[in-house]
Amino acid sequence: MSKKIKEIEGGICAPQGFQVAAISCGIKNPAVERLDLALIYSEFPTVGSAVYTQNQVCAAPVRLSSSNLKSSEPRAILVNSGNANACTGHTGMVNARAMSTAASKALGLKQREIQVCSTGIIGVQMPMDRIEPRIAELAGSLGTDGDAAARAIMTSDTFPKSIAVSVKIGDQKVRIGAIAKGAGMINPHMATMLCFVTTDAAVSKAEITAATREAVDVSFNRITVDGDMSTNDTVIVMANGQAGNKTITRGGAGSAEFREALGQVMLCLAKRIVADGERVTKLVEVIVRGAASNLDAERVARAVANSKLVKCSWNGNDPNWGRIIHAVGYSGARVKEEMVNIHLNGVLAAQNGLAAPTAIEKLSEAVSGPEFTVGIDLNIGRGEFTIYTSDLSPEYVLFNREEYSLNRKK
Amino acid sequence: MSKKIKEIEGGICAPQGFQVAAISCGIKNPAVERLDLALIYSEFPTVGSAVYTQNQVCAAPVRLSSSNLKSSEPRAILVNSGNANACTGHTGMVNARAMSTAASKALGLKQREIQVCSTGIIGVQMPMDRIEPRIAELAGSLGTDGDAAARAIMTSDTFPKSIAVSVKIGDQKVRIGAIAKGAGMINPHMATMLCFVTTDAAVSKAEITAATREAVDVSFNRITVDGDMSTNDTVIVMANGQAGNKTITRGGAGSAEFREALGQVMLCLAKRIVADGERVTKLVEVIVRGAASNLDAERVARAVANSKLVKCSWNGNDPNWGRIIHAVGYSGARVKEEMVNIHLNGVLAAQNGLAAPTAIEKLSEAVSGPEFTVGIDLNIGRGEFTIYTSDLSPEYVLFNREEYSLNRKK
Repeated sequence: MSKKIKEIEGGICAPQGFQVAAISCGIKNPAVERLDLALIYSEFPTVGSAVYTQNQVCAAPVRLSSSNLKSSEPRAILVNSGNANACTGHTGMVNARAMSTAASKALGLKQREIQVCSTGIIGVQMPMDRIEPRIAELAGSLGTDGDAAARAIMTSDTFPKSIAVSVKIGDQKVRIGAIAKGAGMINPHMATMLCFVTTDAAVSKAEITAATREAVDVSFNRITVDGDMSTNDTVIVMANGQAGNKTITRGGAGSAEFREALGQVMLCLAKRIVADGERVTKLVEVIVRGAASNLDAERVARAVANSKLVKCSWNGNDPNWGRIIHAVGYSGARVKEEMVNIHLNGVLAAQNGLAAPTAIEKLSEAVSGPEFTVGIDLNIGRGEFTIYTSDLSPEYVLFNREEYSLNRKK
Repeated sequence: MSKKIKEIEGGICAPQGFQVAAISCGIKNPAVERLDLALIYSEFPTVGSAVYTQNQVCAAPVRLSSSNLKSSEPRAILVNSGNANACTGHTGMVNARAMSTAASKALGLKQREIQVCSTGIIGVQMPMDRIEPRIAELAGSLGTDGDAAARAIMTSDTFPKSIAVSVKIGDQKVRIGAIAKGAGMINPHMATMLCFVTTDAAVSKAEITAATREAVDVSFNRITVDGDMSTNDTVIVMANGQAGNKTITRGGAGSAEFREALGQVMLCLAKRIVADGERVTKLVEVIVRGAASNLDAERVARAVANSKLVKCSWNGNDPNWGRIIHAVGYSGARVKEEMVNIHLNGVLAAQNGLAAPTAIEKLSEAVSGPEFTVGIDLNIGRGEFTIYTSDLSPEYVLFNREEYSLNRKK
C-alpha cells in the first residue's frame, strides 16, 4: 500500500455513519446455530454503485438489487448465507422482494433503497418462514460489530474477511471499510463472492461508479480458484459523505487517492478469497510480461491459472514448467516457443523454451511455500497481465462431490 | 454402428499389406522392461493424411512429421512412449530427424516417408543412445502383432486401445484398423493422444484428407478429460489400396460408407480414451439441443464438460443440476434461464430452469453408473452439439502432482 493509505481497525463499521447487525436463522439447517443473516445500514443518504455477476443464469436477489439500484441510491444491504435463491423462478423473485420489503419497513426506508444478496445452495427455495419474521429483530439490533457481519456471509470460507483503511483526501481523512466472502466457484469476472464496501467519503455518482468498476477490474476480476462463475456474485459500494471532504468528482482532486485506496481494499480481500479457496494450499501470482498485447498477456495468464494439470503440480510442490509452457501454447495468444522464459518465485526454470540449468532441488523449493510467483516472459512485446490463483487439491474434489445430495436428503 | 460396418479381429494389422513391430528400449527408465518403441509399416505405397496438435508450443516430431507429409506420402510411422521430445529445441529436432533417418535406412525408404511421433514427459531430451541403435532390430522384427504396438504407445493408459472394422464399398470389402493412446491432457481440439489408422481401401488424396478431418471432428475433437491441450497430439491415416476396390474419390461412390466407417473407428477409440482418462470413474455424454446455433450448443457443451465443480459432483454420484445450469449461464451462449430443461440419463432434473419434482433417490441413481448422459435443452432454437467427458476424481489430482520432480530426480 502507498504511504497515504493506512490500515485501521473497525472493518466495515470504520467509516462514520454505518451500522451492522447479524443473527442466526438456521437458513441452511435449522438445527445448526450459526450467523446467517446480516444487515449493513447507512444512517445517512448515500451514493452507491454495484457490479453484479455476468452469468446469464442469475439469482433472484441479483435481479431485484440490480433493478433497485437503477431507480434509487442504496441505504441498506440485507444479505444471507445458506441459500443462493438462484434457479428458483417466480417464487424466488417473490421471496427476494419480501425480504427487501420487510427490511425497508423495519428501517423506515423505501423498498428500492434495499439491496438483497444471497449465497449458498442453488435450486432450493428460501425458507422464508425462518427469515421474514426475524428481519425486524435484525434491524433492531444494529450496532458496530462488523466481524459478526463478516461471519454471517461465510459459506465454506474458513475465516471471515474484513478490512478498513484510511486515506488522506486533501486535508481530510476518509475511511473505507469492507467485508467479503468467497470459497467455491471463484473465477475471473466475478464468482461466488460477495463484497460490501462502506465509505464516509463524499463522492459523486459518476466517480463512485467509475472507481468501483476500476477497483473490481484490478481485484476480483483477476482471481481464479476453479474457473466456475457463480450466479450470485455481487460487489456493492455505499458512500455517505460523512467525512466532510470536498466531494470527489470523476477524475477530479482526490480521485487518484480514493481509487487507489478502493482498489487496495478490494485487492486485499480478493487475495484472501483465493488463499481461502475450497481446500486450497497455495496462493500463486501469475505474472505475464512481454506479450504482443495486454489481451494476449491476459489469455496466457488465464490459461495457466485455470489449467487443471498445472494446478495439480503446484499442489504437489512440483516445478513442472513443461505443463505451464503447454498452457501458454494453447492460450490463443501469439507465442514464439523459443523466446519463452519462465521463473518460479524468481528462480529460472525455462529459458528460450528449454529447461534451464537450475538444480531440481532449487526449483522444488521455489514452489513449496504457501505463496509464490510464476513469471512468464514471452519476449515479443510489451503486454502485461497479472492474475492470482491457487493449486487444485484432492480435498477440493472430495469437498465438492456431494453438496446437492446432502442438501436434498436433509 | 450401421449394418454395413462390422467389427473384425486383427486391430491395426487387419487391413492387408500392413506390418507392425514393438520393442522395449527403457526410454523413460532403463531399469523398467516395457514396450516403448513401435513401427507401423505399409508394404505398399499409400495415400496419407494427418491432423496434428493446434498448440503453438508443439513437439519436434510434430514439426518434422508435418513437414514430411507436405513433401511425401507416408510409408511408416515410428512412435515412442516415455518421452514427448517437446520443449527440447534444436537438439530435439536433430533427434527426431535421426529417428526418421534410422527408420528410413532400415526400411529402404526415403526419410520423408517416415512419420515420427513421441509421447511422454515434456522438456527432457530423448535418450538417443538407447533408441537409435535399436531401430534396425525393430524394423527386422515386423509382423502382425498389433496388440504389441497398441501397448508400446501407452503412457498412463490402463489398457491398450485397438479396433478394426470391415465395410462394403460397392461389392468390395475394405478394412480399417487403428490403435490409439490417451490418458492425461485430453481436451477438445486434440490432446495428449495419438491415433494411427491403417486401411487397405483405395482412396484418393482429396478424399482421405477430407475424410480424416471429418472423422477427427466428430470424435477426438468432441472429447474432454481435463481441458488441457497437449503439444504432441497426432492422428495419422495411411491407405494402401490393397483391397482392390474402385478408388473412392471425394464425395464419389463409396465415400459416404468409408467416411462413416472411419468416423466410427475414431469415435470408438475416442470414447475409450475418455473412459480410460487418468483416474476417471465415469464416461459422460453431454448432449445439448435447442440452442440458437450449433456453435452456441458447442459453447454450452464445453462449459459443462470442463466445469471442475460439475465434474466433482459426478465423481460423488451427486445429481447437482444447479452447477450444470450455472455453467450453461456463463458459457457465452444465448440462454433463457426459464426455458432450460436438464435430463440426467433421461430422468428430468430441471424443468423451465427450476427443480423438477423428481425424487432425489431417482436422480442420484441416474448419475451413479459408470456411463450416463446429460441432456440439456435450451428450447430457443435448433442448434445441437454432443461431447464426451468424464468426472474429476481426488485420485486424478494425486496422480498428477509430482510427475516432473519424480522424473528429474530419477
